Amino acid sequence: MITNETIVALSTPPGIGAIGIIRLSGKDAISITNSVFHGKDLLQQESHTIHFGLIKDGNMVIDEVLVSLFVAPKSYTKENVVEISCHGSNYIIQQIITLLIKKGASAAKPGEFTLRAFLNGGLDLSQAEAVADLISSDSAAAHSVAMNQLRGGFSTELNVLREQLIHFASMIELELDFAEEDVEFANRDQLQELIGKITIVLNKLIRSFELGNVIKEGINTVIAGRPNAGKSTLLNALLNEDRAIVSDIAGTTRDTIEEVLNINGINFRLIDTAGIREATDTIEAIGVEKTMQKISQSAVLVYLFDVVNMSATEIQDDITSLHRPGMSFIAVANKIDLSYSDRLKELKLPADIQFISISAKEHQQIEELKQLLYETAVGDKLSDNHTMVTNIRHVEALQRTQAALNSVVNGLDNPVTSDFLAMDIKQALHYLGEITGQVTTDDLLENIFSKFCIGK
Amino acid sequence: MITNETIVALSTPPGIGAIGIIRLSGKDAISITNSVFHGKDLLQQESHTIHFGLIKDGNMVIDEVLVSLFVAPKSYTKENVVEISCHGSNYIIQQIITLLIKKGASAAKPGEFTLRAFLNGGLDLSQAEAVADLISSDSAAAHSVAMNQLRGGFSTELNVLREQLIHFASMIELELDFAEEDVEFANRDQLQELIGKITIVLNKLIRSFELGNVIKEGINTVIAGRPNAGKSTLLNALLNEDRAIVSDIAGTTRDTIEEVLNINGINFRLIDTAGIREATDTIEAIGVEKTMQKISQSAVLVYLFDVVNMSATEIQDDITSLHRPGMSFIAVANKIDLSYSDRLKELKLPADIQFISISAKEHQQIEELKQLLYETAVGDKLSDNHTMVTNIRHVEALQRTQAALNSVVNGLDNPVTSDFLAMDIKQALHYLGEITGQVTTDDLLENIFSKFCIGK
Repeated sequence: MITNETIVALSTPPGIGAIGIIRLSGKDAISITNSVFHGKDLLQQESHTIHFGLIKDGNMVIDEVLVSLFVAPKSYTKENVVEISCHGSNYIIQQIITLLIKKGASAAKPGEFTLRAFLNGGLDLSQAEAVADLISSDSAAAHSVAMNQLRGGFSTELNVLREQLIHFASMIELELDFAEEDVEFANRDQLQELIGKITIVLNKLIRSFELGNVIKEGINTVIAGRPNAGKSTLLNALLNEDRAIVSDIAGTTRDTIEEVLNINGINFRLIDTAGIREATDTIEAIGVEKTMQKISQSAVLVYLFDVVNMSATEIQDDITSLHRPGMSFIAVANKIDLSYSDRLKELKLPADIQFISISAKEHQQIEELKQLLYETAVGDKLSDNHTMVTNIRHVEALQRTQAALNSVVNGLDNPVTSDFLAMDIKQALHYLGEITGQVTTDDLLENIFSKFCIGK
Repeated sequence: MITNETIVALSTPPGIGAIGIIRLSGKDAISITNSVFHGKDLLQQESHTIHFGLIKDGNMVIDEVLVSLFVAPKSYTKENVVEISCHGSNYIIQQIITLLIKKGASAAKPGEFTLRAFLNGGLDLSQAEAVADLISSDSAAAHSVAMNQLRGGFSTELNVLREQLIHFASMIELELDFAEEDVEFANRDQLQELIGKITIVLNKLIRSFELGNVIKEGINTVIAGRPNAGKSTLLNALLNEDRAIVSDIAGTTRDTIEEVLNINGINFRLIDTAGIREATDTIEAIGVEKTMQKISQSAVLVYLFDVVNMSATEIQDDITSLHRPGMSFIAVANKIDLSYSDRLKELKLPADIQFISISAKEHQQIEELKQLLYETAVGDKLSDNHTMVTNIRHVEALQRTQAALNSVVNGLDNPVTSDFLAMDIKQALHYLGEITGQVTTDDLLENIFSKFCIGK
């Protein structure tokens, strides 16, 4: 997949800004830049140095720029890399990129710089994927998980286990060469022990995905309740302070997702629903069905009820119809600033339901509700500081590895010939290798890197 | 206005991208960065070098970054400057800027980096203003004018004249010291000659504003005509090819201005109007009035008529009612692909009207119409390659200089005492100095730099 082409792309976000960075990577990155740069001779300069000069197309000055040089292999891609820092005008950026392409560079495809970093051994595959996660991370927890993965994360852990498994695989291969002599080079007990160790790690990683995924994507939190229970007021009360922080820097992702509330560094995606009630016609029935669908996809369900205007029976009925065993369910009594009521005492709540009383309007107990949300969704699962899997591709590979290792264990318990054992171990090695990229296919790489932004 | 503060801001456009650049400038730029950077000791490194390392807040890794160092005075602002190249995630950028502010940096105001470059003598004022123009330039001509101004432009020309005028001013000041002796140190003939020379330059520059301004802002081109004359078809035909080029890079300015057509590097802003016709009621009268208002603000008026379905009289009436002497007027006969007509022969067009026949639908003569637009609006005014004034502030200062010099000339023709002459020359010097910034006030600077983007 590596070509000799030198690639070029804008690496900063499009739009008008003070600076735009155009990045080149490849054998000819420095010489192509040199052919349009007027200042020093870039071919004579050291790596990791910066040079002021003009980019010219013939006699026409396109821009005054700073050129940063990274000489192979001391660069992100391990190839020669040049970064041209120009004025952040779309016109200028377009002119410079067009000129560089005229001089022999090719337009980079999405993620092509990182793909080259991977193919040239600068990053393993899970680290490369972490780069994309890091760029799109929008909460402290998502950032920390991506950074951990970028800096090695479970790659190191998996690679140690993989090395050990490779050792057994080669021992068993050796047995195949001596098949007629019926020798055992690979100690079956040690193999069983190793697989046990690997299984513990795999299970831990697979289990971590549940939380890792919601950390990356945000925790779907559905707010349900009858009309006028105060859902919108609650939403505003919850979002009140956090909006200001998020909007410190323009262009954040706020507008693509409905409402995001950050609690202790975790993003909760608040999903408002149409008020639930008995459907009296078809259109209302569709609304109720949609609400139920949202609820079934939620990680946490917040059921809000009006403690003043609803009877205990009504509340009880709603909870019964919404509650399913095992779901994260928080019942929230609203409007406690108004006449307090004894209704709450009559309620019989299922044991696995959390309960809190608030006043959305008067901002009473809002902070406590946030903490309850955090405890219900995250709890102490983050406290052990373990490596976390956030990528569906990784979790699938881990599950396949697990299945292959189960076959090995079965083969050990009900002895099969060495060649069957060898096959299953190789299968496990294959899936493990897919995670960090020792085993790849063009399709796999295409699939991963096409999701990157251009210029990365 | 210079402070000891070290300023920090994001210098790349907001939004998600591969790279974000955070820029610091000030005495402590390097030491503040060093306090959160883990890699080398940045204080020991050379100017114009790049260093890989981690930005950490305590033990928490915020990002892997590249740090570029520019040691004073070898930088844009002539102060110590650091550029931190981090992953282009809003979350990370926000974290790093917050951390740097915690360590002693202040958030930069719009244009503050360029303001410092000016105050520290790195740029004169008209060059600083050219930076903003350059960033927002979106056509070859606007770019070339801004680049010319950034690279010295008329600053050099004005400064030579200013030096000569200062010489005379000091001679006349000297006369004031010897007032009782009635001597003339300043040769009046030479002064008159110099003022004559300056006036020629000033006039040339003031006149250049007319074109300079439209080059920067785009040329307002109103398309008028009766309903069904084919205005929308013409608009599409004109824009057909250029759209693709403009949209090569996302985030260009297209969405903020209605329709922009680039002809030979000049932007024409095409403004569609409601069809003109006799107003039969009040609402229609408002529409017609709006159209007339747009026409009065246009630099070029394109009157489009349907050569098949309109009588010569109707066409003639429209032209008579729209045409004003001295305006740039192009009459365009549309639908020549349909049955050709003799009506055109009957038309008596005013001498200063351009005329062309096209078919918008069949794309006949569209390229010719574009060239006619260019010739009408720009002609050979660009060919002499003179420096161009694009800034209303500059043209006003030039006009005031001119007025002051006129007073000097009057004072020479109807001899006044040296102190009056000296006062007028000083006035001229004052206005001339405002352009390049030898003379400034805080208000003036505030006014200029507040229009910059943050990070520049």
